[in-house]
Amino acid sequence: MSKIRIGVVGYGNLGKGTEYAIKQTEDTELAAVFTRRDPSTLKILTEGVPVYSVNEILDHKDEIDVLILCGGSATDLPKQTPELAKFFNTVDSFDTHAKIPQHFANVDAAAKEGGNVALISVGWDPGMFSLARLYGSCVLPEGKDYTFWGRGVSQGHSDAIRRIEGVLDARQYTVPVESAVESARSGQNPELTTRQKHTRECYVVAEEGADKARIEQEIKTMPNYFADYDTTVNFISQEELDRDHKGIPHGGFVIRSGHTGKNNETSQIIEYRLKLGSNPEFTSSILVAYARAAYRLNKEGVAGCKTVFDIAPAYLSPKTGDELRASML
Amino acid sequence: MSKIRIGVVGYGNLGKGTEYAIKQTEDTELAAVFTRRDPSTLKILTEGVPVYSVNEILDHKDEIDVLILCGGSATDLPKQTPELAKFFNTVDSFDTHAKIPQHFANVDAAAKEGGNVALISVGWDPGMFSLARLYGSCVLPEGKDYTFWGRGVSQGHSDAIRRIEGVLDARQYTVPVESAVESARSGQNPELTTRQKHTRECYVVAEEGADKARIEQEIKTMPNYFADYDTTVNFISQEELDRDHKGIPHGGFVIRSGHTGKNNETSQIIEYRLKLGSNPEFTSSILVAYARAAYRLNKEGVAGCKTVFDIAPAYLSPKTGDELRASML
Repeated sequence: MSKIRIGVVGYGNLGKGTEYAIKQTEDTELAAVFTRRDPSTLKILTEGVPVYSVNEILDHKDEIDVLILCGGSATDLPKQTPELAKFFNTVDSFDTHAKIPQHFANVDAAAKEGGNVALISVGWDPGMFSLARLYGSCVLPEGKDYTFWGRGVSQGHSDAIRRIEGVLDARQYTVPVESAVESARSGQNPELTTRQKHTRECYVVAEEGADKARIEQEIKTMPNYFADYDTTVNFISQEELDRDHKGIPHGGFVIRSGHTGKNNETSQIIEYRLKLGSNPEFTSSILVAYARAAYRLNKEGVAGCKTVFDIAPAYLSPKTGDELRASML
Repeated sequence: MSKIRIGVVGYGNLGKGTEYAIKQTEDTELAAVFTRRDPSTLKILTEGVPVYSVNEILDHKDEIDVLILCGGSATDLPKQTPELAKFFNTVDSFDTHAKIPQHFANVDAAAKEGGNVALISVGWDPGMFSLARLYGSCVLPEGKDYTFWGRGVSQGHSDAIRRIEGVLDARQYTVPVESAVESARSGQNPELTTRQKHTRECYVVAEEGADKARIEQEIKTMPNYFADYDTTVNFISQEELDRDHKGIPHGGFVIRSGHTGKNNETSQIIEYRLKLGSNPEFTSSILVAYARAAYRLNKEGVAGCKTVFDIAPAYLSPKTGDELRASML
């Protein structure tokens, strides 16, 4: 059986994680990596796989079954996904929730024009958490959703701290408040404010002689990022940051608290929980599973933009329907 | 918009739960209940909905969009689902895992003959737990699955105790061992035996003067049901049983413990957890969501037997694709 030939666009954390994830499968293979850097400077893990400039990607159209787009949501994907979905089946992890409808429309037009399947917003949130919210709301229509994130590193919040004057480096953890998680699990359907659900924990390396009180104040009052949260700021050395905070753990909970029965008197709780040693590696593993689905759907003649909501779970597995029913149902 | 007209076959706990669940939706309605009892003796909750003999069900073919089959897996469904899938879209909760492939084959032939969609093995295990196992194994192919059930009432085990001489009534709880759940969550991928994963807790009402030591011994050594477990037996009065053990709670955990990374060095844990006030009411709510999917798929021209693995999640929701992407992704 020939393997599904996957092209990876972008070789950062997500691109590397995709390379690792492909190695865990028997039915996919890494066919090429496309980069904006000078390809000759990029050394990848898998022997014998070519690295090309992303500018020449169309020359390699016939070598690729599905492209996994490993760029960022701020500037890369809004441009890249519609451009490439015209020529390839694609999977991206576009995660700016508010802009998903616009991204969907752009990508859908391109994918239909090219007769390709383009899966967007694949990952864990959006992605597996979205599925937990959807299944939960469908099987318990009378109820309330709670999504908690963490304990995990937020890259966006870490970057925001690094932009403050006098800060050399920083790492920010989003931390769910245990008592809030417990109250969501209680079946009481509490109303929880932003401040009640999460705290923010910051580890900051300051320049020698910097005004730490001012830095702490700037962090804690930063609108959108920190002002609505209880935030703690810890000043540490670069050595401590590198030693104790180099991982990219994450995770969280989606809780559906619903009621059933003659008079809605019965409490029913569904909880989906992730505890991730590496956020990008987990996202990459999901991207590879959905690349399999994109390939199969396109083989069946499907074209257009899709999300995790549109993919029947069986398409994610290398097993046949018979095997799945016998072993997993 | 006209509602999806649902027929319920069988009016036990599952049938009643289905009636409650339909009332929580805006796009489905209870069209009729079919019973093996004398229809005139059956009083249902919803005003104005007819109750018919199941023997006359074909006379009402044009009044029903989807039948939800609320019989048991031992004798009802193996016969009923193939018979009825010839004439109706159907959803059943067939839960004898080992016999699913045979049931699938029988139902598939019938459903294709009639041009209908027949969804089998819908509920939480098989069902939502199966989905957790499938998604988990697809996104973390290097890993191990753990399914724990409970704390919850097992009807089959309770029945087995009631068949012992001298027993008037009984209730059996399956209880997951907390330390085993913790070790499954640890990322160490432990091997766990049947005895290590669950204990069994029995509440037994004995006849006046019965030999309780013999009853306890018979329970604890019963093959398949109890012999492989650490079992505790508590003798209580009928009043205590009725007062303290009348609910049908259940639940459990599906844990996927996987590894990612260059050398599979990163631990990633996915956990799906249910805490159910009522087992049959939760199952019924799932049946109604999948009835919506069966109806829609059939409208698109699909026919044949399907399981939860074959249903794209969006089909379960009354919301449109645009609404789902904007609100839940």
